[in-house]
Amino acid sequence: MARIVQKFGGTSVGSVERIKAVAQKVKATVDAGHEVAVVVSAMSGTTNQLVSWAKECGTFHDAREYDAVVASGEQVTVGLLAIALQDIGVDARSWLGWQIPIHTDDAHGSARIESIDTTILSERLSMGQVAVVAGFQGIGPDNRITTLGRGGSDTSAVALAAALQADRCDIFTDVDGVYTCDPRMVPKATKLDNITFEEMLEMASGGAKVLQTRSVAMAMRHGVKLQVLSSFEDSPGTMVIEEKSDMEKNLVSGIAFSLDEAKVTLVAIEDSPGIAAKIFGDLADAHINVDMIVQTAASEPGKTDITFSVPETDLERTRQVLEEVRKVITCADMITSSHVCKISVVGVAMRSQPGIAKTMFETLAEKGINIEVISTSEIKISVLIASEYKELAVRSLHTAFHLDAS
Amino acid sequence: MARIVQKFGGTSVGSVERIKAVAQKVKATVDAGHEVAVVVSAMSGTTNQLVSWAKECGTFHDAREYDAVVASGEQVTVGLLAIALQDIGVDARSWLGWQIPIHTDDAHGSARIESIDTTILSERLSMGQVAVVAGFQGIGPDNRITTLGRGGSDTSAVALAAALQADRCDIFTDVDGVYTCDPRMVPKATKLDNITFEEMLEMASGGAKVLQTRSVAMAMRHGVKLQVLSSFEDSPGTMVIEEKSDMEKNLVSGIAFSLDEAKVTLVAIEDSPGIAAKIFGDLADAHINVDMIVQTAASEPGKTDITFSVPETDLERTRQVLEEVRKVITCADMITSSHVCKISVVGVAMRSQPGIAKTMFETLAEKGINIEVISTSEIKISVLIASEYKELAVRSLHTAFHLDAS
Repeated sequence: MARIVQKFGGTSVGSVERIKAVAQKVKATVDAGHEVAVVVSAMSGTTNQLVSWAKECGTFHDAREYDAVVASGEQVTVGLLAIALQDIGVDARSWLGWQIPIHTDDAHGSARIESIDTTILSERLSMGQVAVVAGFQGIGPDNRITTLGRGGSDTSAVALAAALQADRCDIFTDVDGVYTCDPRMVPKATKLDNITFEEMLEMASGGAKVLQTRSVAMAMRHGVKLQVLSSFEDSPGTMVIEEKSDMEKNLVSGIAFSLDEAKVTLVAIEDSPGIAAKIFGDLADAHINVDMIVQTAASEPGKTDITFSVPETDLERTRQVLEEVRKVITCADMITSSHVCKISVVGVAMRSQPGIAKTMFETLAEKGINIEVISTSEIKISVLIASEYKELAVRSLHTAFHLDAS
Repeated sequence: MARIVQKFGGTSVGSVERIKAVAQKVKATVDAGHEVAVVVSAMSGTTNQLVSWAKECGTFHDAREYDAVVASGEQVTVGLLAIALQDIGVDARSWLGWQIPIHTDDAHGSARIESIDTTILSERLSMGQVAVVAGFQGIGPDNRITTLGRGGSDTSAVALAAALQADRCDIFTDVDGVYTCDPRMVPKATKLDNITFEEMLEMASGGAKVLQTRSVAMAMRHGVKLQVLSSFEDSPGTMVIEEKSDMEKNLVSGIAFSLDEAKVTLVAIEDSPGIAAKIFGDLADAHINVDMIVQTAASEPGKTDITFSVPETDLERTRQVLEEVRKVITCADMITSSHVCKISVVGVAMRSQPGIAKTMFETLAEKGINIEVISTSEIKISVLIASEYKELAVRSLHTAFHLDAS
């Protein structure tokens, strides 16, 4: 007997028929003798509808009211799933964030979970009752509903698994696991049986949308065993684990990519302490998500060039922020280019294998692809290239690192 | 300065545009210097959708889960209205049943309000903040969401007005007041400026759907000044008051009707104590809403006939219950007929005017309409007649009692 947290996303609970199918999956786990807590998202489409209503009602809407509105979606699905479970003879009850309670901070719209009181929940689980828990939501110090931000249900599931000391956290989604690359881009992509937390983190931040980055980081921190698997098929998925055995070590685990990036270069800025802090501090205050940052010596002595990437949709706002910054710091020029994309090669084995970068750069050079920016971490090498080369680059790298299905 | 509770139904908040229009109405009241608490229903159609999903998920659904699901509709509208109010510069916040809290009993699906803690609400109102309160919902002793049953938002509004000691409770709806009769049936119907609580109760239970009976009874008990008015027009509505002045006393205030009734007669049952209690107790246990009850002496000595009406949709279940009852009590026969309707003439002045019944029966007789059952109260006379005569009966009575618009 194990204690298992199962999470089902919006597509998996998108209709009454699908909710009934989820109930059957939960029942199978219960029938196998396990204790089950289920975390669900809102029906797919619901959250978008609620968000757009909130925006239509007021341009600068109060985040606390926004939270009350959008959290209602999960309230519907937990109730419906509890009913569907009871209907097939499974003892179940729904739990809203404020009922457990799941305590969060007061950052409405993107709150962080601070603690989960599992006393009653744990008691009910051991009595054989399935807990159907609303994902994405909690209660803030002001006794008002908070939400965790987009994709927050993954975080809810992992946090609950950690608090309940669950043996496993199964994330059911519309794909059957984590792939070496997005199969829509690379038809030869193969499913990974295992991936380490760090690789998963790099894949996620590199654009692989299977799991929310925050939930992976939380699982790593709390040692929660994660599994990604399909809610529509009955097959094993991908286990996200601490460390692979030597036998399993591929040089590279996967290729991640992130489209619609923009590149910004500040040319010949004064190279003195506090300048980078000023630039990226102001961008952070404007909620612009800066990704790759590269600093190089400028041609002029005592000056430096800084290049970084931002989402293409944030480019215009980035320009505005930087125009202000340039009023207080010396900077010869600002060059921006859109239509670039980020390609990342990810693998824990990289640490001990210096040849990866060489293979990557050679492969791209052979195809005539110019690298605009390079950034490396211990287990990842990322490059920015022109968007038009994205398929060519990703497929060539997938082949070069022997990831293609045979 | 007054303290006013305003209630807006589902049609009034049926879209973002309408929610914005409601916000303007609330703002006008705030600008006039009043303290305002607003009670809202779910967007029209939402509750029906949620109810049907709950039914599809499980035939015998858990009422506690049903409540969690359906209460989400009001959670959406309170948040949206608070946003819309803030957007036009009105300080406002939303309140869910469990946040205030509105304590109810544990009769999930048709809970009764037991108490409302208005400490914080009252404080906020006096600071000029509009309270946007979710109608239809509360919190039960089990810390779970309860709902008050269909039309419960009227009850929420009146209960809140009583608890807040509000000067007035305005019920905004899709009609502009209470009419002498349903204008769809009687084009000559006129709007009443005033109606007494008792008349309103009789009109409501007679089928006038303007206000939920329960909310009228509660307003009467707590002396809440009620006004029914249009959310789409800017005109005074109908005030529901304690007692009319002599000047205003019409003989009859209005004609109410209730279609789709069925009539049941139990012939020659034993006339001994406890028999009626047995019959109507068993029907109540089956949640069958018995309306008019008439008992007459049967032709046989020591026997009696009992006739009563039930909604036509409950007739089959009524038959089943009574077949069981007939196994333990003596009863010669059971006669049922559907396709009857109830017509009621309502007016407080009836108490002192014995001629009303005569006029009513003569009017129907002149038109050749046969009366199947008669039942009277101090301020109402109701008859059951064949459904096919309903328009003829209602319009003739409307004319006979001088209610037609001139």
